[in-house]
Amino acid sequence: LIILSPLSLNHTFGRSWVSKSDLSSIVERPQRLLAASIGIAAALSLFPQNFKVYLSNFKSSLYSHHVVKIHGKKWPQEIEKLCQESEKKLAKNQMEVPEGWPNGDIYLNKNTILALKGVVGTLEKSVDSIFDEKTRFFNSFKKVFVVIRPPGHHSHPCTPSGFCLINNAQIAIQYASDTYNITHAVILDIDLHHGDGTQDICWKRAGFNSENLVSDFDSAFDLNINKNEFSNNKYDSSTKKKSLDPKVGYFSLHDINSFPTELGHATASRIKNASTCLIGHGLCIWNVHLQKYKDDNEFYQQYKTRYNQILSKAEEFLTQEKLEYKNKLDDYYIQLDRYNKTKSQSFQTQNYIFDENQKNSLDHNENYNKNYNKGFQLKKPLKPAEFKPMIVISSGFDASEYESQNMRRHDVHVPTSFYCNFTKDVVKLSEKFTKGRVLSLLEGGYSDAALCSGIFSHLIGLADCNWKENWGKEETIKELTKGCRTKWKQIKYPRNELQRWATQVIKLGRLLLPDSII
Amino acid sequence: LIILSPLSLNHTFGRSWVSKSDLSSIVERPQRLLAASIGIAAALSLFPQNFKVYLSNFKSSLYSHHVVKIHGKKWPQEIEKLCQESEKKLAKNQMEVPEGWPNGDIYLNKNTILALKGVVGTLEKSVDSIFDEKTRFFNSFKKVFVVIRPPGHHSHPCTPSGFCLINNAQIAIQYASDTYNITHAVILDIDLHHGDGTQDICWKRAGFNSENLVSDFDSAFDLNINKNEFSNNKYDSSTKKKSLDPKVGYFSLHDINSFPTELGHATASRIKNASTCLIGHGLCIWNVHLQKYKDDNEFYQQYKTRYNQILSKAEEFLTQEKLEYKNKLDDYYIQLDRYNKTKSQSFQTQNYIFDENQKNSLDHNENYNKNYNKGFQLKKPLKPAEFKPMIVISSGFDASEYESQNMRRHDVHVPTSFYCNFTKDVVKLSEKFTKGRVLSLLEGGYSDAALCSGIFSHLIGLADCNWKENWGKEETIKELTKGCRTKWKQIKYPRNELQRWATQVIKLGRLLLPDSII
Repeated sequence: LIILSPLSLNHTFGRSWVSKSDLSSIVERPQRLLAASIGIAAALSLFPQNFKVYLSNFKSSLYSHHVVKIHGKKWPQEIEKLCQESEKKLAKNQMEVPEGWPNGDIYLNKNTILALKGVVGTLEKSVDSIFDEKTRFFNSFKKVFVVIRPPGHHSHPCTPSGFCLINNAQIAIQYASDTYNITHAVILDIDLHHGDGTQDICWKRAGFNSENLVSDFDSAFDLNINKNEFSNNKYDSSTKKKSLDPKVGYFSLHDINSFPTELGHATASRIKNASTCLIGHGLCIWNVHLQKYKDDNEFYQQYKTRYNQILSKAEEFLTQEKLEYKNKLDDYYIQLDRYNKTKSQSFQTQNYIFDENQKNSLDHNENYNKNYNKGFQLKKPLKPAEFKPMIVISSGFDASEYESQNMRRHDVHVPTSFYCNFTKDVVKLSEKFTKGRVLSLLEGGYSDAALCSGIFSHLIGLADCNWKENWGKEETIKELTKGCRTKWKQIKYPRNELQRWATQVIKLGRLLLPDSII
Repeated sequence: LIILSPLSLNHTFGRSWVSKSDLSSIVERPQRLLAASIGIAAALSLFPQNFKVYLSNFKSSLYSHHVVKIHGKKWPQEIEKLCQESEKKLAKNQMEVPEGWPNGDIYLNKNTILALKGVVGTLEKSVDSIFDEKTRFFNSFKKVFVVIRPPGHHSHPCTPSGFCLINNAQIAIQYASDTYNITHAVILDIDLHHGDGTQDICWKRAGFNSENLVSDFDSAFDLNINKNEFSNNKYDSSTKKKSLDPKVGYFSLHDINSFPTELGHATASRIKNASTCLIGHGLCIWNVHLQKYKDDNEFYQQYKTRYNQILSKAEEFLTQEKLEYKNKLDDYYIQLDRYNKTKSQSFQTQNYIFDENQKNSLDHNENYNKNYNKGFQLKKPLKPAEFKPMIVISSGFDASEYESQNMRRHDVHVPTSFYCNFTKDVVKLSEKFTKGRVLSLLEGGYSDAALCSGIFSHLIGLADCNWKENWGKEETIKELTKGCRTKWKQIKYPRNELQRWATQVIKLGRLLLPDSII
């Protein structure tokens, strides 16, 4: 299943005073959705039976429990206020983004809030479609690719960063936890950039103080509010459902020389953040760095020896947690057994107390103590929540070989086939742990060619089909990308089979999301 | 070659008011040297031809360039002052260590300074013995194990931590750089604990600001002085020797639940520190965490799949740096060639300028610019410093299966054979990159049994011989450890071969360092 949120088109850049060359640096544009549509159409044209596309106009509140749990209440209020004020400010040629914010990356307009509500609503429906087996919403597809923007993985609890305002992946997981009792999640992040925001939220989930986690920017911002959100909102352990705070493992493949660890941004703490490899202290975080490669052979050698660590460590995490759940369950049954026996013995315990004066052996004392404890202190044990993990892919396509030169300035990237092959490996993992369920969310990917080719390849992988080399060839992608132009016109006399196919794909893609062409 | 510094015995605990039970928590004791001697004697008794033991009474100034480069001038002054004052304070039953210092770990007395001077002098001689091929000092042994205390790997530039006051490994490397033009070093740290101090100094060497690196404790201390030390002391690039600031890679195998990431100490930043895996931004740091294991088979499976990463990443670091040197050298020859040609052409360049008005083609302009630059701006290129790496092992033995229960409370350890097998792998690495040169420095290891067995096994590995299982058996180590008792008396009638051998070993060990018995 592929779910697109056309409401995402509402997030647009509104600074009219900006020069044309500066405007071209705004790469996180509504037009990304059109490129995505054409990538989707390409996959659809080849395997029509494997996909269903759904346009989601669902909206949900930025004050939903799953948003507030991650971001607190003050952060959505702040965004909402800024969006409301932005129209007037922009009209006066004033910057709509507060001082101190990364205004080269972040922009706002009055409808940004609509885009964000669409994101939250679409995330909810995507999770529903995967987990709600009763209503068979969308026939309960097990794998969903969600096209939304702005992306989310740089978003800290109350800090916008990169192009991100709210953390889509963590919100989706929180919703799945609240609604479907998800106990664990792994986030596999293949965006070119380190998802520092997503990772930070994992530290918070593990109970760490925000003081240690804040980026340089956070400290300037009001974090106290959020800290309280996190501590006051602790789930009440008395009811089963609410005690589920999902444990989230974060696994990222990224470029250590790109934002947020690009020279100029790269403080030691950010670099350490993006280089953390840890299973312990209640956390599972694994960061792997992209390398240069000469040809596909060398790339797949690196994939085998380095990159697939994000998969093997995710598997290690899920295996360990599953084992721990089994141990807890065994322990529960032992405790329950003891509890039931004690209940029936509690009257006898009284006799032991009277017996005490008769014998004074150590043995007896021990017995006395044991039974005393049993009779008076044993509580009925709580059955541990069922181990129920989910898998999320933070699907960024900006590491693609077809990404723009500027984005690729550090010279590390991946071949287009990677998106298919990696996704197939994720599908394998999902068959082991989540009954084949995978939630994939669009993160970065900025050039038309990167989005179009990357999403095409990713979807082929999600359908567990094989990628063919010529689908990722430059001439193919070039033809498809033509369809991303606003004023694209159908070629009357296609010169070859490729052009014929590309034309059909483009027509379909533009049909999927007609609003994006305006 | 094995070098012991008997001056290390001078660092003793002098708080007379401390209760016996508290005294037993002081595990970093002078008696560690005796346990080390018996471990040494065990190896010596089996392979007398492979070892030479040297007692070093060398002392060197705490204001030597290689110490000041790492720690600044203020830090040795501070220690010296505290040591001088400690006698009076201790006599008055006052704490000799300033408030805010970790006084459970760190202690001082007036002779501590003597121990530290002995450490620095012994480090110098150890490096000399490896690199000074002319004087054939100690017959130029290529592998040296150095027995010194206090250990050094927790020591930050101006922060004492763990039991450490100065960073022995980094001082040795700095001395090797200053004296023998060492350009690169790898530090392989197998202590149970993360060498946070050593790693921090690597960040500083890479030019990072101390602000980002300081531990919680650092911030309380006066770091400004040290920051200036680091920036003011920048090597002058005009002379070849001084431009050698060695690039140091740090590779550590440790327990993520022990100090400095033990619960109570474990801030997020310390955990990230101890979990950093990074090749980039001018740094090479790789941290691997010890796992539990059931039997030797499982342990060596983990060794193969996880732990040997500290070796493979060290190899990757050295390979990359060597390649980079070769590229620099190639570039140098190209530049030199261009320089020489330009010199002979510089007169002709003048003619080009006159020609300019005649032809105005783009080609011509380019030629003109090129030649202009050549004639007036080309400097004679500097030949890059020869690639000359060294390998240092931070040999802590506190991860041993024979370490005390308290030190092993997190239940991760290594079999005694590990110290031999790992060291043999280091020897292999040294044959590839450093002509077989290895400098091994004693770090932690606190129980007599851990030190004795660990050092025994480590030395067998350093001699590139094979470890035999029964050497590490409990009964063997038990017999040897008897010799660590101050009042040990030779058994008159040994009951078996083992006791006969152990008696000889103990006699030899106690002979090596007679002062330690007092």
